[in-house]
Amino acid sequence: MKVNGTPYRSIWPNKNGWSADIIDQTRLPHEFIIKTLSSLQDAAEAISVMRVRGAPLIGATAAYGLALAMHEDTTDEYLERAVKTLLATRPTAVNLRWALSRMQQVLSVSPAGERVTKAYAMATKICDEDVAINHAIGQHALGVIRDLWQQKPAGTESFHILTHCNAGWLATVDWGTALSAIYQAYDDGIPIHVWVDETRPRNQGAALTAWELQSHGIEHDVIVDNAGGHLMQHGQVDMVITGTDRTARNGDVCNKIGTYLKALAAFDNDVPFYVALPGPTIDWQMRDGVNGIPIEKRDSVEVTHVTGKTATGQIESVQITPDGVSASNYAFDVTPARLVTGLFTERGVCDASEDGLLGLYPEQAGSGL
Amino acid sequence: MKVNGTPYRSIWPNKNGWSADIIDQTRLPHEFIIKTLSSLQDAAEAISVMRVRGAPLIGATAAYGLALAMHEDTTDEYLERAVKTLLATRPTAVNLRWALSRMQQVLSVSPAGERVTKAYAMATKICDEDVAINHAIGQHALGVIRDLWQQKPAGTESFHILTHCNAGWLATVDWGTALSAIYQAYDDGIPIHVWVDETRPRNQGAALTAWELQSHGIEHDVIVDNAGGHLMQHGQVDMVITGTDRTARNGDVCNKIGTYLKALAAFDNDVPFYVALPGPTIDWQMRDGVNGIPIEKRDSVEVTHVTGKTATGQIESVQITPDGVSASNYAFDVTPARLVTGLFTERGVCDASEDGLLGLYPEQAGSGL
Repeated sequence: MKVNGTPYRSIWPNKNGWSADIIDQTRLPHEFIIKTLSSLQDAAEAISVMRVRGAPLIGATAAYGLALAMHEDTTDEYLERAVKTLLATRPTAVNLRWALSRMQQVLSVSPAGERVTKAYAMATKICDEDVAINHAIGQHALGVIRDLWQQKPAGTESFHILTHCNAGWLATVDWGTALSAIYQAYDDGIPIHVWVDETRPRNQGAALTAWELQSHGIEHDVIVDNAGGHLMQHGQVDMVITGTDRTARNGDVCNKIGTYLKALAAFDNDVPFYVALPGPTIDWQMRDGVNGIPIEKRDSVEVTHVTGKTATGQIESVQITPDGVSASNYAFDVTPARLVTGLFTERGVCDASEDGLLGLYPEQAGSGL
Repeated sequence: MKVNGTPYRSIWPNKNGWSADIIDQTRLPHEFIIKTLSSLQDAAEAISVMRVRGAPLIGATAAYGLALAMHEDTTDEYLERAVKTLLATRPTAVNLRWALSRMQQVLSVSPAGERVTKAYAMATKICDEDVAINHAIGQHALGVIRDLWQQKPAGTESFHILTHCNAGWLATVDWGTALSAIYQAYDDGIPIHVWVDETRPRNQGAALTAWELQSHGIEHDVIVDNAGGHLMQHGQVDMVITGTDRTARNGDVCNKIGTYLKALAAFDNDVPFYVALPGPTIDWQMRDGVNGIPIEKRDSVEVTHVTGKTATGQIESVQITPDGVSASNYAFDVTPARLVTGLFTERGVCDASEDGLLGLYPEQAGSGL
């Protein structure tokens, strides 16, 4: 998407023909800095210190990391070492594992002399596929948004979409998932205004979603996570769209903590609540999301401290609680399917239910049972 | 309540017999500093820069401010000037107006020679009445908490209460409203654990409620405002108690932004949701809280910036959003009566409805109609 008029992806080939460039997301939203990854080590470091984050983008960066490794040394030993190095950067990231195993399948059967070319080709393919999936999600969502917009009374000035966390292009290679819908509706001429939940504790909404929308030129207001209920109660939200980290077979949706509260408010006020997701994030073996999906507890320092820019331009972390306070930090929650109006996927729009999902992914009927 | 073992009120007479001491709340939770108010000007400054805040405490401080004024000069002219000075500190504070008019009624008909004594007596009375009201609220709440606690299975280790914002003794002269219930349950031997919503944007939960509970020795965990729904969904909340700024005649409750979202989650998970309030905050003329109560929009800098303590111990404000971002800051929301299990007042517990309220305040049946 655009950064002040110039189109960007979150990772792209450098002009030298072999490095990869990324946006250093640890500096956002306060600085826009492009970093060139020129070695396996650069790629591994970028993933582990979260210069890149978001499952699809981590996978894409790992793929480029293996290409850079092949650029350094095409031996079997080095290939194996490179895979191990990259796997160790974010041990629980599913997309990382998936991207590396796709790369490895191709490279392990290729003669050393072809590995460089094949590695770059596969890294490009992984990126392009991600872009195509996200674009398709947004295209299907656009149909729903257009219908809702056309139902608004003549003279309505804006179509208000509320989103939580960052399911934007910065988390993928381009478009994003929830934000793909918003970008495509905007590009289609619908006068979108976005309510951006700041999304404590890590403030990905206030920092990343606000930065994306501002950079692309889409109207928005950052709000505290507490505000969405009031806005929906007073007719100021036409639709909610969020992303998801994992969708259960029954349509329950696991996403950033606080998503469930927004879904409750949407339901209480008849506001359509949609979730955007790529097919691979559906967990066909999870039959009951609310009771089955384990919720990660993270370091309480994310609750007790907030990071931002001081008056003098330094990035600092400030403590908002008394010294020695006890704090709990649940990272995700699960929204029951009964509160979800529908799911946007790369194959179309469906109900948040097993039947709905199997309608789009019939080949999964027998999986995980 | 106690600060590390020593009982405190939020305002009390200084040992010199004529000044008043307060806790400087602008320094909490990072420093506990007692400040002596020795002049009308001291009192006015303390209110206007929010060294004291919370409607009842503002009223009590204004009352002491007039007593200090009489200590300086007992003439009619000075009395009038003092009232004007104090009224100007927080123009919209109802309790400020109410306390000053009570003081004025007594002082204006007293000869100059009696004004000092009468002013201090009335200031003391205003404080003691507030303490009595808040204590009574907590006593009535205690009955409900005890019943709920006794229904827990044998061997349950803690009774978990979630609260939002700060309805504690720091906002009143002592006890608080919602926290009065918690203090009295704790003093009664019920093993209370409190989930403290941080309460963005101003973080009164993370700063003040956490400090109060920590100082009094009550178990608690600070959580982000996003977390309550997940906790209720997983049986980790036995009860919610909040305060309120205004209760409508129909039982709708206006309170800090985000209260409505917690009420929705409580309702969805059969968690009792109670609101604690002193009778004078009932607005008998407001027949429909959700549609009738105007919601204040405050400076967006409260959303874009967060204040806390840096690693070097300085109090600083950091910006969490991109430069120039648009943000909206709604300060309150209204929870519909249908989501409120009951109201704790100084006269007893009632349903959140006109019938419920009139059962406790029958003298208001004709008021405001």
